Amino acid sequence: MTNETNIPCGGGASARGDSSGCGVAGAEATGCDPVALDAELSALGKAARKAARRLGVLSGAVRNGALAAMAEALRRNTADICAANARDLAHGRSRGLSAPLLERLALTSARVESMARGLEDIAALRDPLGEVTGMWTTREGLRIGRLRVPLGVVGIIYESRPNVTADAAGLCIKSGNAVLLRGGREALATNTLLADLLARAAEAAGVPEGSVQMVASPHREATTRLMSLDALDVLIPRGGKSLKAAVRAFATVPILMTGMGNCHIYVDAGADIDRAVAVADNAKTSRPAVCNAAETLLVHADIAPDFLPRCLAVLAAKGVEIRGDARTRALFPAALPASEADWDTEYLDLILAVRVVDSLDEALDHIARHGTGHSEAICTESYGAAERFLREVDAAAVYVNASTRFTDGGVYGFGAEMGISTQKLHARGPLGVEQLTSTKFIAYGTGQIRTS
Amino acid sequence: MTNETNIPCGGGASARGDSSGCGVAGAEATGCDPVALDAELSALGKAARKAARRLGVLSGAVRNGALAAMAEALRRNTADICAANARDLAHGRSRGLSAPLLERLALTSARVESMARGLEDIAALRDPLGEVTGMWTTREGLRIGRLRVPLGVVGIIYESRPNVTADAAGLCIKSGNAVLLRGGREALATNTLLADLLARAAEAAGVPEGSVQMVASPHREATTRLMSLDALDVLIPRGGKSLKAAVRAFATVPILMTGMGNCHIYVDAGADIDRAVAVADNAKTSRPAVCNAAETLLVHADIAPDFLPRCLAVLAAKGVEIRGDARTRALFPAALPASEADWDTEYLDLILAVRVVDSLDEALDHIARHGTGHSEAICTESYGAAERFLREVDAAAVYVNASTRFTDGGVYGFGAEMGISTQKLHARGPLGVEQLTSTKFIAYGTGQIRTS
Repeated sequence: MTNETNIPCGGGASARGDSSGCGVAGAEATGCDPVALDAELSALGKAARKAARRLGVLSGAVRNGALAAMAEALRRNTADICAANARDLAHGRSRGLSAPLLERLALTSARVESMARGLEDIAALRDPLGEVTGMWTTREGLRIGRLRVPLGVVGIIYESRPNVTADAAGLCIKSGNAVLLRGGREALATNTLLADLLARAAEAAGVPEGSVQMVASPHREATTRLMSLDALDVLIPRGGKSLKAAVRAFATVPILMTGMGNCHIYVDAGADIDRAVAVADNAKTSRPAVCNAAETLLVHADIAPDFLPRCLAVLAAKGVEIRGDARTRALFPAALPASEADWDTEYLDLILAVRVVDSLDEALDHIARHGTGHSEAICTESYGAAERFLREVDAAAVYVNASTRFTDGGVYGFGAEMGISTQKLHARGPLGVEQLTSTKFIAYGTGQIRTS
Repeated sequence: MTNETNIPCGGGASARGDSSGCGVAGAEATGCDPVALDAELSALGKAARKAARRLGVLSGAVRNGALAAMAEALRRNTADICAANARDLAHGRSRGLSAPLLERLALTSARVESMARGLEDIAALRDPLGEVTGMWTTREGLRIGRLRVPLGVVGIIYESRPNVTADAAGLCIKSGNAVLLRGGREALATNTLLADLLARAAEAAGVPEGSVQMVASPHREATTRLMSLDALDVLIPRGGKSLKAAVRAFATVPILMTGMGNCHIYVDAGADIDRAVAVADNAKTSRPAVCNAAETLLVHADIAPDFLPRCLAVLAAKGVEIRGDARTRALFPAALPASEADWDTEYLDLILAVRVVDSLDEALDHIARHGTGHSEAICTESYGAAERFLREVDAAAVYVNASTRFTDGGVYGFGAEMGISTQKLHARGPLGVEQLTSTKFIAYGTGQIRTS
């Protein structure tokens, strides 16, 4: 989940507080006109805010109708979408994009159909808005409740997969939010067409103009400028380390950070070895490029002689490169030596770091030190170890005897997701429609005044 | 709720990305040693993180025992606390602090007793930790639930009132969070002693060392450096515009913004005039210096001739300065003319801006444009107007026929509060112990792997 194409221009010229945004140096380097860029983003933000005020009070029926119309628009224009995508692919090949990146970028009519069905699935979800999550009466007779409302304007920065354009637009419309989409430059033609089709279909179905907009500027600086656009109630950056660093440097709006997953499987002494092998295998190899895949295997010393040779043979046979500490390499000589840096690396590839530990405490310490708070699993038959692991590991999702790969909005029953939040504020784990809402207190009185 | 004493040193030297923190210019101006300051904050952060890991798994009984011990420590040391406070007051007088500021700073034995009782009240609240807010079983047989856990390390920046030191420490211990306290410089002696007493009492009761710490540096730069201290899971700035601006410029950690309240009372056509006068009077005059006090009165043109002269006479008799638009001044000639800036001013004083509007829509537009999303009230006898106001006003708390002054953790039944959040992410409204928590997903499996 790297986001190489969206890294900021960098340099002091873009430092916070410089209202010109991308600055002179950046402008020279990339041909970016900071004044025009500011004007573009400011206009998008203004339109989004205006749309959000009306969108937030539309009925669920209108929002669902818009989702159906958006799905239909994608289906009806499949040929055009694939043609735009072919232009992006040709451009990507000429720029030397890697095969996996091109594969993620590529759309087929089946993939367009799957995007359309995704929108219909979102329409079928329960309406998150309007729910009153609690209502009580104060001693003064004032009746107070908590009403679920949209966040307002949501920004999302994402990478090459164009399906995110439809998913993000769909989740935001469902939850009554206006959205500003900022996809990767390599998918510009595809995303521009998709956003246009989705916005026009939504508007025709009664959703206000400005509800779905794309930040179309080809300049990288637009991404960093988006991070300080006051109109945003929240920005969701979906990406890797470089995006996280840019957010840290440039963001002044509230952030929901997603996607960094340095996930561990810890195999405890006395674990069921067959199960543990299956869990480790699934967590590493079923889809190595995603954030809930495991990157490090920790094994208790008591079970390592029985478990490690078997487990690592299975993984090696599937092409996994093993990087082990000294004790691992003594048990599995084919392993390469692991360095300190391996414990902190999110490979997103068929590589696994392996370490033998002497206790559950040592495993917990390792995870506390190196984990990114995404998904962590223990394989154990010990009640006490299971409960300690669940309680003490500080992560969005903690598993006993199950693969870390389960951390997913779809699997959890939330429907599609905007990503997996690894922060503790607001929402942790899969970001579904409910996580795109806030609440407000509403109070019904009969003239109450405060006397205390 | 201004925070004049905590404004940053400002200037380019402190811009984000400058790792030296307060920078050379700031250092010259205030005698601040940036290296020493960084070392101090980094040590506090490290100790807090270490404490948080252990604090988060302590039983509720231990945390409540610590709160009782903290209360007792305050009672036992009342004389010393008042003596330290006398030093702050003397210093404040010599610096020419205003009378209201000195009044907020002053402690008496009764106020110390009230702080101690506050801690006992927090101990009596339901334990927010350990609650599982939902648990379900996936089709693979994996049982997943959402466990309520602490945020981790909480930072708070606040102003002269020393009771916040005890409240914040108490709320954080109750919710299993380590806390870094940054009070105003004018209360340094008082807060230093309070934090020391609270920390030592908590530790003696089994809470880990480092759970309650104060950022004691006398330099303003410590406040801005705190805004980018990685160890913080959240920073809660309690203050006014200058603090909000500093947060915008310097914060890189997640923020819960509190306290800005440009609150409105809208009196609709056909409102019950007696009730509306009582509500407007209470919202403006019962405690004008707090954030839930009303600052602007909007009145429908149809009711203005009956309502305004009566209401404004009541307020003027209580010493409220009225600043009205032309139509208000025509009905109440004693009013001063309001300028555009008045609609955006949080007076926190006995001043009220008044405007006559032609419709509910015009009132909603005014609030959308000038409100800070804190507390808003309508006085009306119209069902439709009440429901539209509740639905369409975007604020933490929206009232029908009741005073905005009700927005308060104690009144809402949440116990003490860290402040009133005016942002939509994570928590909106009073920040009680539950708002100082996060959740994590916990999953009980029997070897499940993901196959889809």
